[in-house]
Amino acid sequence: MLRISAETPKAPKGARKGRGHDAPLSPLLRVPSGGRVDLGALHPGATPAGPTDKAAGVAATAQMAEQLASLQERLYAASTAGDRRRVLLVLQGMDTSGKGGTVKHVIGLFNPSGCRIKAFKAPTPEEQNHPFLWRIMKALPQPGEIGIFDRSHYEDVLIARVRDLVPRSQLGRRYAQINRFEKSLADDGVTVVKVFLHISYEEQRKRLLERLDNPDKHWKFNPGDIEERAAWPAYQQAYELALERCSTDAAPWYVVPSDRKWYRNWAISKLLLEHLEGIAPQYPAAGFDLAECRARLLKT
Amino acid sequence: MLRISAETPKAPKGARKGRGHDAPLSPLLRVPSGGRVDLGALHPGATPAGPTDKAAGVAATAQMAEQLASLQERLYAASTAGDRRRVLLVLQGMDTSGKGGTVKHVIGLFNPSGCRIKAFKAPTPEEQNHPFLWRIMKALPQPGEIGIFDRSHYEDVLIARVRDLVPRSQLGRRYAQINRFEKSLADDGVTVVKVFLHISYEEQRKRLLERLDNPDKHWKFNPGDIEERAAWPAYQQAYELALERCSTDAAPWYVVPSDRKWYRNWAISKLLLEHLEGIAPQYPAAGFDLAECRARLLKT
Repeated sequence: MLRISAETPKAPKGARKGRGHDAPLSPLLRVPSGGRVDLGALHPGATPAGPTDKAAGVAATAQMAEQLASLQERLYAASTAGDRRRVLLVLQGMDTSGKGGTVKHVIGLFNPSGCRIKAFKAPTPEEQNHPFLWRIMKALPQPGEIGIFDRSHYEDVLIARVRDLVPRSQLGRRYAQINRFEKSLADDGVTVVKVFLHISYEEQRKRLLERLDNPDKHWKFNPGDIEERAAWPAYQQAYELALERCSTDAAPWYVVPSDRKWYRNWAISKLLLEHLEGIAPQYPAAGFDLAECRARLLKT
Repeated sequence: MLRISAETPKAPKGARKGRGHDAPLSPLLRVPSGGRVDLGALHPGATPAGPTDKAAGVAATAQMAEQLASLQERLYAASTAGDRRRVLLVLQGMDTSGKGGTVKHVIGLFNPSGCRIKAFKAPTPEEQNHPFLWRIMKALPQPGEIGIFDRSHYEDVLIARVRDLVPRSQLGRRYAQINRFEKSLADDGVTVVKVFLHISYEEQRKRLLERLDNPDKHWKFNPGDIEERAAWPAYQQAYELALERCSTDAAPWYVVPSDRKWYRNWAISKLLLEHLEGIAPQYPAAGFDLAECRARLLKT
């Protein structure tokens, strides 16, 4: 079972100091396949394996930027020579958990021309006439791209469960449908990185109040947000189910404690870095005669 | 006729010093409706009304960032209350003129979630079976968004003309079709900002050579780029025609000298700022009972 406690675990005796945030983060935040998830036991304010404070976190994140941009360029370059690999970052979380802020942060790390962002809202009537994965397939990243989903097909087992939008039997089948779908993506070269932005009930109230207390943020507020908040326990339970049933080897879930925005940004940057390093994309060899092209160009 | 000389025009006697880049840029770079365009007379290395050098240019651009982000947020916020207004930035220019770099720069100024980027490549067989504006309409920004086109429907009067891809009579009708289409966009609340990134023949050679001389950039190079370069005069002429025939009050063309990347970025930021200020979007009033929501939220 995944555990994230409020305390940063003490380094074992004799451990090298400063090891901290160089160690792989993915295994630490990953929901084990088939494991149980108890969100109540995962502290949203924790900073597992992270830098010690905000300033260090911001600096460590900035330090990853160059590597991330370089890996993205290689990924994109490789696609021009037929490499189909790509990344899909799926962001889920309660209202105010920072999905939009994360999109903004992530895209700032990359060349936006190689990113494909999609924010999923309530399905349109046309989308409702199709299977729930239809609109998802239309928004997938192309080879070489980094796709970012702000909400996703998981809404179809989250709000759909909490609000009883579909019969329970149909809902029950969706978890397996999602797993098969994501397996197909992985088979086709998509590295799927699913992140649950975990915030606390108290942090959500604080963030909603901020929206109410700042006239420039009123447009972000919807009275319906309070009704959704009232269903907090049902949503947490729906998330636990989704994380348990759909954290597979092909497409694992990661829980990122997100009460601290600097930690959230650092952790997501690190997860992306580790996955891109895993892909290890390479610039393709030139498919043309370099010397001949050079000579021809110099004559113009 | 639009004129951009190599020299920055001298300030008239008694003019306030430092006025420079606070004056509106749009009228200076705008192609007058119905005017003649002679690209050969427009210096691609010029910096009209711009900061004096690169350092000053980068600083002046950074200074606009906060205003731009704030205007974009208002634009987006207004759309949630039914305001249909939005911006469409169309980027055209020869190979290496910096379309991709401009997209990267522009998106860095805004919240990318409110931007819709589309890079148009050679039309697919499906796209070719439709009228040339079909794929353009599918990529338009939604209300509140900033759309950015890297290439556009203008390719259909540029490469289509230079490479004789369609009969001349059909080509001739396209200018009027484009004007009608863009007028409809304007009527529907789209502020269309069309920018021609104007580089010199020498600068293009330099930038292509850089791609050849850096193994990490070989993937960006295509031997076909040299053939396209051989058609430089035909392309310049095709651009002149497009700029002359399609710079309308509803959707004017701007020529941005782009041999200096810092000037290009400054000028495009300034053009966007001026157009967004023209839109003057406002945060919508709260559509709910603030006190009641606050009280209800505090009880949770």
